[in-house]
Amino acid sequence: MIIVMQNTATREMVDEVVKVVKGHGLNTEVMHGTTRVAIGVLGDKTQLEEGNVIRLPGVKEILAVSKPYKKVSREYKIDDTVVTVANSVKFGGKNPPVIIAGPCTVESREQVLEIARGVKKLGAKMLRGGAFKPRTSPYAFQGHGVEGLKMLKKAGQEVGLPVVSEIMSAEYLDEFMENVDMLQIGARNMQNFDLLKAVSKVKKPVLLKRGMSATVEEFLLAAEYILAGGNDQVVLCERGIRTFEQSTRNILDLNSLALIKEISHLPIIADPSHAAGRYDIVPALGLASLAAGAHGLIIEVHNNPCEALCDGKQSLTFYTLEAFMEKAKPLI
Amino acid sequence: MIIVMQNTATREMVDEVVKVVKGHGLNTEVMHGTTRVAIGVLGDKTQLEEGNVIRLPGVKEILAVSKPYKKVSREYKIDDTVVTVANSVKFGGKNPPVIIAGPCTVESREQVLEIARGVKKLGAKMLRGGAFKPRTSPYAFQGHGVEGLKMLKKAGQEVGLPVVSEIMSAEYLDEFMENVDMLQIGARNMQNFDLLKAVSKVKKPVLLKRGMSATVEEFLLAAEYILAGGNDQVVLCERGIRTFEQSTRNILDLNSLALIKEISHLPIIADPSHAAGRYDIVPALGLASLAAGAHGLIIEVHNNPCEALCDGKQSLTFYTLEAFMEKAKPLI
Amino acid sequence: MIIVMQNTATREMVDEVVKVVKGHGLNTEVMHGTTRVAIGVLGDKTQLEEGNVIRLPGVKEILAVSKPYKKVSREYKIDDTVVTVANSVKFGGKNPPVIIAGPCTVESREQVLEIARGVKKLGAKMLRGGAFKPRTSPYAFQGHGVEGLKMLKKAGQEVGLPVVSEIMSAEYLDEFMENVDMLQIGARNMQNFDLLKAVSKVKKPVLLKRGMSATVEEFLLAAEYILAGGNDQVVLCERGIRTFEQSTRNILDLNSLALIKEISHLPIIADPSHAAGRYDIVPALGLASLAAGAHGLIIEVHNNPCEALCDGKQSLTFYTLEAFMEKAKPLI
Amino acid sequence: MIIVMQNTATREMVDEVVKVVKGHGLNTEVMHGTTRVAIGVLGDKTQLEEGNVIRLPGVKEILAVSKPYKKVSREYKIDDTVVTVANSVKFGGKNPPVIIAGPCTVESREQVLEIARGVKKLGAKMLRGGAFKPRTSPYAFQGHGVEGLKMLKKAGQEVGLPVVSEIMSAEYLDEFMENVDMLQIGARNMQNFDLLKAVSKVKKPVLLKRGMSATVEEFLLAAEYILAGGNDQVVLCERGIRTFEQSTRNILDLNSLALIKEISHLPIIADPSHAAGRYDIVPALGLASLAAGAHGLIIEVHNNPCEALCDGKQSLTFYTLEAFMEKAKPLI
Repeated sequence: MIIVMQNTATREMVDEVVKVVKGHGLNTEVMHGTTRVAIGVLGDKTQLEEGNVIRLPGVKEILAVSKPYKKVSREYKIDDTVVTVANSVKFGGKNPPVIIAGPCTVESREQVLEIARGVKKLGAKMLRGGAFKPRTSPYAFQGHGVEGLKMLKKAGQEVGLPVVSEIMSAEYLDEFMENVDMLQIGARNMQNFDLLKAVSKVKKPVLLKRGMSATVEEFLLAAEYILAGGNDQVVLCERGIRTFEQSTRNILDLNSLALIKEISHLPIIADPSHAAGRYDIVPALGLASLAAGAHGLIIEVHNNPCEALCDGKQSLTFYTLEAFMEKAKPLI
Repeated sequence: MIIVMQNTATREMVDEVVKVVKGHGLNTEVMHGTTRVAIGVLGDKTQLEEGNVIRLPGVKEILAVSKPYKKVSREYKIDDTVVTVANSVKFGGKNPPVIIAGPCTVESREQVLEIARGVKKLGAKMLRGGAFKPRTSPYAFQGHGVEGLKMLKKAGQEVGLPVVSEIMSAEYLDEFMENVDMLQIGARNMQNFDLLKAVSKVKKPVLLKRGMSATVEEFLLAAEYILAGGNDQVVLCERGIRTFEQSTRNILDLNSLALIKEISHLPIIADPSHAAGRYDIVPALGLASLAAGAHGLIIEVHNNPCEALCDGKQSLTFYTLEAFMEKAKPLI
Repeated sequence: MIIVMQNTATREMVDEVVKVVKGHGLNTEVMHGTTRVAIGVLGDKTQLEEGNVIRLPGVKEILAVSKPYKKVSREYKIDDTVVTVANSVKFGGKNPPVIIAGPCTVESREQVLEIARGVKKLGAKMLRGGAFKPRTSPYAFQGHGVEGLKMLKKAGQEVGLPVVSEIMSAEYLDEFMENVDMLQIGARNMQNFDLLKAVSKVKKPVLLKRGMSATVEEFLLAAEYILAGGNDQVVLCERGIRTFEQSTRNILDLNSLALIKEISHLPIIADPSHAAGRYDIVPALGLASLAAGAHGLIIEVHNNPCEALCDGKQSLTFYTLEAFMEKAKPLI
Repeated sequence: MIIVMQNTATREMVDEVVKVVKGHGLNTEVMHGTTRVAIGVLGDKTQLEEGNVIRLPGVKEILAVSKPYKKVSREYKIDDTVVTVANSVKFGGKNPPVIIAGPCTVESREQVLEIARGVKKLGAKMLRGGAFKPRTSPYAFQGHGVEGLKMLKKAGQEVGLPVVSEIMSAEYLDEFMENVDMLQIGARNMQNFDLLKAVSKVKKPVLLKRGMSATVEEFLLAAEYILAGGNDQVVLCERGIRTFEQSTRNILDLNSLALIKEISHLPIIADPSHAAGRYDIVPALGLASLAAGAHGLIIEVHNNPCEALCDGKQSLTFYTLEAFMEKAKPLI
């Protein structure tokens, strides 16, 4: 932590800041620049909050030198983490990108099974499907709940694909533990800290989606909650951020994906379907994600998107998925 | 709903769209413009999802004519809703703005009591205080939990102020029902739909904060969840939005506050403390909110902000609160 | 400038960075923290670009201690600057807020004169009116140009109000010098550096609008261009920023207005009309700006907004301006 | 244009709106929905501004059916436009992506020549280099001006690469016409309408960069200015947008790139260097852009980035460019 002083700060003000910092058991290094003084704070900064010094006379601002996350950082663990799902599917490191595909929502036993068969045949390695749906409107279809989870599990078993589904509340953790191979935390729950703590205590890989307006730092801190609680099997997922540009639903943020690959050892995949919000640009965003180094993709696919109960706008058909997989080959 | 066709759409394409819409039990009105055809959809639009038609040949885009919220709208209820807390404090309508004040976090019995006395004396009508704290980092102080709630209740009773505190999970709903006069849903939980449903079922007013990147429509839909479940005692709270500008923490969005007063009958207050993130501009934002027509303010106040365990950066002292209340008089 | 090293940086890497910095004629102060080394750079930092050191082995990031602007800063000049227009109207310091009002665009001699009379009567101290209009579409009305300027000047003289109008290119500087009392740089031209340099060389006050996505730092640097060139008669204008929220045109950023009043000595006014984009919330935003401490307002007013050639959506009528001025009295 | 009425609007209000619309020479189609009336406006909508009707009693909002741009649209011209520079380099259509490379700024004859040779050898088809630099701070190096242009031209001729450089003001148009093969309009000048009009009148291809907070619609309207003026040789360039996420400089918006390829016939390239702002993620963003379908890339390359006068942070070295070109092969 660096405490930057006003250029008008007196020697007494500097001395007072040093005294307060030392009173918290920390050391200081006073630097006299050409226009102002800056005070380096040395020691365990958790002993000192910004609020403890920002109001002292003559203090201009505080600069953070260290990041607030630890275990997710490559400075903590230099080698790539590989997350293994159902003893078979591997995310991260030198493993080829994993394609997860399936419907937005599990609508029926037949629907999810047909889609599972279709995506398996086209090269998907995992099956996705929503059972509990976070819907912006209380009047929209909210999913089949535990029944949906069971249909998903069954379809996965039948075709031989591990399954992932979104958990919205710790209340249903047992059902999820029983029915899915990977727990998904959705964008809206990225900072549902009670839920993060709950999944940190179980032995099951977690797919953690970035909140649509979460910074990279907040995203990594959400993952830090899970690692700090004892579960280091976390796969990150970039799914588009909210910006002023609204001609498509969100903007896929490959800058952050590329940056996270450098600063964190955790695998990171992309969700081109939610980033796009419209099916026609999903393939372009999927290919871009792979080219940028994503460790996988999660893609919405539907056997009959015009009749889908949810997000039919952005689902690929088997036909478009097939074309996409063909183009993706050189990148996988 | 208006279905806008490509300018190259053929008559057959238009006919097909009309057929699909009618197949969902709806009527259409086909408008032939100078460059393209637009198809008005008449009837209960919940029968038709955008995804059902957007992929049909010749369709360019879909425009929404109606908003997805109902009960929160002034078109549903034209008169201002007045929300009454503890049979005494009234938000909304012609009632004067309500000042809620108190510490970010309940730190101890003494602290919360001293602050309660201070803010009551200066004109606050309700006491705030966090017991369960949503913290971005797993390593930050997370609040005293139920013990904190009890301290808050006690302090409120002793000085005669109703209390409000943030609930982060339905799991603790009973404790909140027993200890607080108003349930606060925080910005990070604005789309925690399970929590919204839980508070919609109880008889206790709710203070619903806007998510830091929630649109006005999403904010009103979150309130709609609560009204749809049966609880119409909702006070909205604008607390700053996340933008590209980060020289202060968030940007207080008074555009939306003014707009919401027109389109919704619910009361809306402002939180200048979280919008500012730094104490020195809190008074300016507080005054601005009142001038813009806020039905109240929720302000962080601390007896010793340099020693606060949380958010000391942005808390007012008794001294600055006093100066603020003086300036606010013509606006209250 | 602080150079933050990786926690894995070796002593040799630190030595190399120190050597490079010293090679640019600067001094260093090496701080050994608990997890990493940080190197304070002392001396005239214009000798060293971030790019010169960021690529050296072991360097993690660079923190800026000083701001890049100088003359606009309160550290450079502590007392408020007062900008005087036409020897009569004063912006800043303890002077009461100045209301500038007038049409978006000068449409005709009669129109601008009628509006000038109306706003003068209601308390405006300056007249605004566009002659050269920056229009997003090439097919929209682009203003009457120099003829418009002359009509504006004439109307101002007839009713006794100084006038301000937007200049879009240095090419017309002579005509503006002759016809207006204050030069306006619009939001889209805030970083038109050739234009900033041109107006920095003349003796005429400048009203500098913030770009709709300019940071506070960029805004102040744009003003710095004008002061650095020799013209210190600059009034800043906050006019709303572009965010994800688009239910109104832009979001008025009173956080930044309040912050700028602290860090700069220049006067700052607000433009509630462009921030709102719809007339019904203009009064609320105008009052909020005054309550937050704005040194003035610039408001669009039209005698017949339903027939306006430009921005009729957001113009106040005489009637609404009158009601607004009444409510604003306690704040002026 | 669709005029949406309040659900409380009376028949008289609807009649009045219809009357006003017809008074502008347009026709209407009144649609009676279940909760409200919507009025379709048929005819040339340039006769009617939103402001003309939005204030009429009972009107709720206005929906736009047509886009404000015309000539840039694929509805106007269905086939891809191919832009040819210097009779040799072709952008768009089925042509392979064009790599433009070179220094941020022309620093000296030797520097630009050495870089020209290097990038040519590695596969670049055009040379970039700044002579007039838009710098946020008045104290930063502003480029060598016309001398810089001449050095660039010479270097291009010597190695056989057409050149492109940014023009900041119409004042220097003659010098640009003489020295460069393609005119670049930078992000900050995307809405410098005088400049757009000036380049619309010349016979020289234009590289138009998207403003960092310009919407797709505004971007296309800026191009429309150039086409409307008579110059249809426009290449668009996505260079990153400004968002809340600031751990990298901007966020490359491939959603919009993919969308623009569908709705416009103009070629579009990407600038991964400015989107990234840091060299280490430039290759990932460059590959992603190609995978998403960009018609080319413009990349900053420097022979000695640690000594660059501008943007050394983000420049690739010859070595990293070579590695990038190798990886890019399957995508070109």
